[in-house]
Amino acid sequence: MPELRKDPITGRSVIIAGERAKRPRQLGKTSDTEDIDPCPLCAGNETMTLPEVMAVRGENTPANSTGWSVRVVPNKYPALVDSDEKSLLPDPTFESHPALGVHEVIVESPEHLTSMGILGVEQITQILRVYRGRMVDLQKDPRWRYMLLYKNHGERAGATFEHIHSQLIALSTVPELAAREINGAKRYHQSTGGCIYCAMIERELGQRERLVSILEEFVALCPLAPRFAYETWIVPKNHAVAFEQTSDRDISSLAHILWQLIAKLNRALDNPPFNYLIQSLPGQESNAIFYHWRMEILPQIAGAAGFEWGTGMHLNSVTPENAARLLRDATV
Amino acid sequence: MPELRKDPITGRSVIIAGERAKRPRQLGKTSDTEDIDPCPLCAGNETMTLPEVMAVRGENTPANSTGWSVRVVPNKYPALVDSDEKSLLPDPTFESHPALGVHEVIVESPEHLTSMGILGVEQITQILRVYRGRMVDLQKDPRWRYMLLYKNHGERAGATFEHIHSQLIALSTVPELAAREINGAKRYHQSTGGCIYCAMIERELGQRERLVSILEEFVALCPLAPRFAYETWIVPKNHAVAFEQTSDRDISSLAHILWQLIAKLNRALDNPPFNYLIQSLPGQESNAIFYHWRMEILPQIAGAAGFEWGTGMHLNSVTPENAARLLRDATV
Repeated sequence: MPELRKDPITGRSVIIAGERAKRPRQLGKTSDTEDIDPCPLCAGNETMTLPEVMAVRGENTPANSTGWSVRVVPNKYPALVDSDEKSLLPDPTFESHPALGVHEVIVESPEHLTSMGILGVEQITQILRVYRGRMVDLQKDPRWRYMLLYKNHGERAGATFEHIHSQLIALSTVPELAAREINGAKRYHQSTGGCIYCAMIERELGQRERLVSILEEFVALCPLAPRFAYETWIVPKNHAVAFEQTSDRDISSLAHILWQLIAKLNRALDNPPFNYLIQSLPGQESNAIFYHWRMEILPQIAGAAGFEWGTGMHLNSVTPENAARLLRDATV
Repeated sequence: MPELRKDPITGRSVIIAGERAKRPRQLGKTSDTEDIDPCPLCAGNETMTLPEVMAVRGENTPANSTGWSVRVVPNKYPALVDSDEKSLLPDPTFESHPALGVHEVIVESPEHLTSMGILGVEQITQILRVYRGRMVDLQKDPRWRYMLLYKNHGERAGATFEHIHSQLIALSTVPELAAREINGAKRYHQSTGGCIYCAMIERELGQRERLVSILEEFVALCPLAPRFAYETWIVPKNHAVAFEQTSDRDISSLAHILWQLIAKLNRALDNPPFNYLIQSLPGQESNAIFYHWRMEILPQIAGAAGFEWGTGMHLNSVTPENAARLLRDATV
């Protein structure tokens, strides 16, 4: 069972999921990796996954058969579990609990496509609607206090499957990074009455040097202090607390700017590995006005190294001003 | 000039060092990487680096000539600078300062060796003595409040040069990860009067399931909540605050257990990429008794992905109990 262990010195949480070591993989195979052929995420192989949670599929096609365009299944080797057990180590000085939560896989094409750059705006729109649908659904369970939608594209970005997919997790605790961001945003709101993200967007729209693109309701920009080279955020231009509340119209607009940004990254950086993730306000606080959701696109060109693992700081060799210029100028 | 920028929402520090994008590299080259041949770290090419800070070299050999076995030079593309400038962005809401510090490269062999596994205990002893010497020296400058010695081995661990080397940084601020660890250790000391690392070592020596090896004054163990698969720490068995205070005898013993551990990793995991780092107490606090230095060896097999970058938590697919067993059983 996946465990949430706490480092006794720093209090840092780590999920230890030993079962995941056994998972088959299409990328980053080693000599003792289980062979995986055919691809369990392809249409026709639905029985190789766990039964689907939902799917966008043709009328009259039964669940777990072909006929779908986007399909959501539980992760077969989850990092999180639904369990009633409380503590796993009897030792009071060292904390270990079951890693409570949900871990789903969103399969983003029935065909064995391996790059988001191949998808059209319409398919991306469908995918984003599925993200929203799953997050709205998971939010109904009051046990889940945080959700993260993330994509690992390419081996260097941590992907083990090449078939295009993303993952959604729900956790029973708010992880540190999110807690810290929420506190920062709250503090700003308390002292100014405003939203720190709105202030940032206004500033960036004025200065323009870190802007990548503007499309209808969204802005793509490189943040002032990016962790990664060419890190880009897509943010709603107008104040919007949670991704789950995005309208259909705005989802289409988001699909368009995301499609464009990925095309720009592929053009400018020769199809880089990347992660993307959606940071939205945890459900319980959905009336809060201090938060503003965003999508982070994190190219993994340099990756982290000893400096990052030792200090917790990031070292980035590309200024966001240069990154934004390159992406702005990339024609697609 | 490398900048230290603070994310306005989370307060997270990032070093933006745009000049580093231009650095030549032997690993992870792209089409627009400057070609680098011959290797500037090889003996005979001393003029290709900045003038040496120190070297272990034969008597009567002049600085910056051949005849050395370990050589330390300033990083030609540093992440840190020595500067008197205060602020780099005139905007009061977004902080940016020069990234103050020192960034050195320790060249660990005059020959173009690419793996630590090739080195004998004697050469490793020399290398560790150079680490100690440079740290003792940098500690004399009261501006440096934190030092980190780290190695990036292999492209996946962030190395850009294959010629065997490590890096040493000194910073004018204590980075968050270290501050947090120091606070945790202080808290434990205040409430118990003891050292939390000594307590951990005692526990692990008793339980044995996470022990890898014991050699004279040192223990190699997998920590209870490791961030990475096969993460292993080498810790002095007896209370020892700072690596800089290690005796010559203990340096030899450390070289031996480090040599053995790297041989075990190479045997068990087929020469994995890895980072290692030395976490020692920042100089100013060298009389503190709550701290206990260690060396962390961090194999980079799975790396970090969207989950880690989104939550700040780590997901590790190998339990430290299984990792320790594998490494214990690897014969070298």
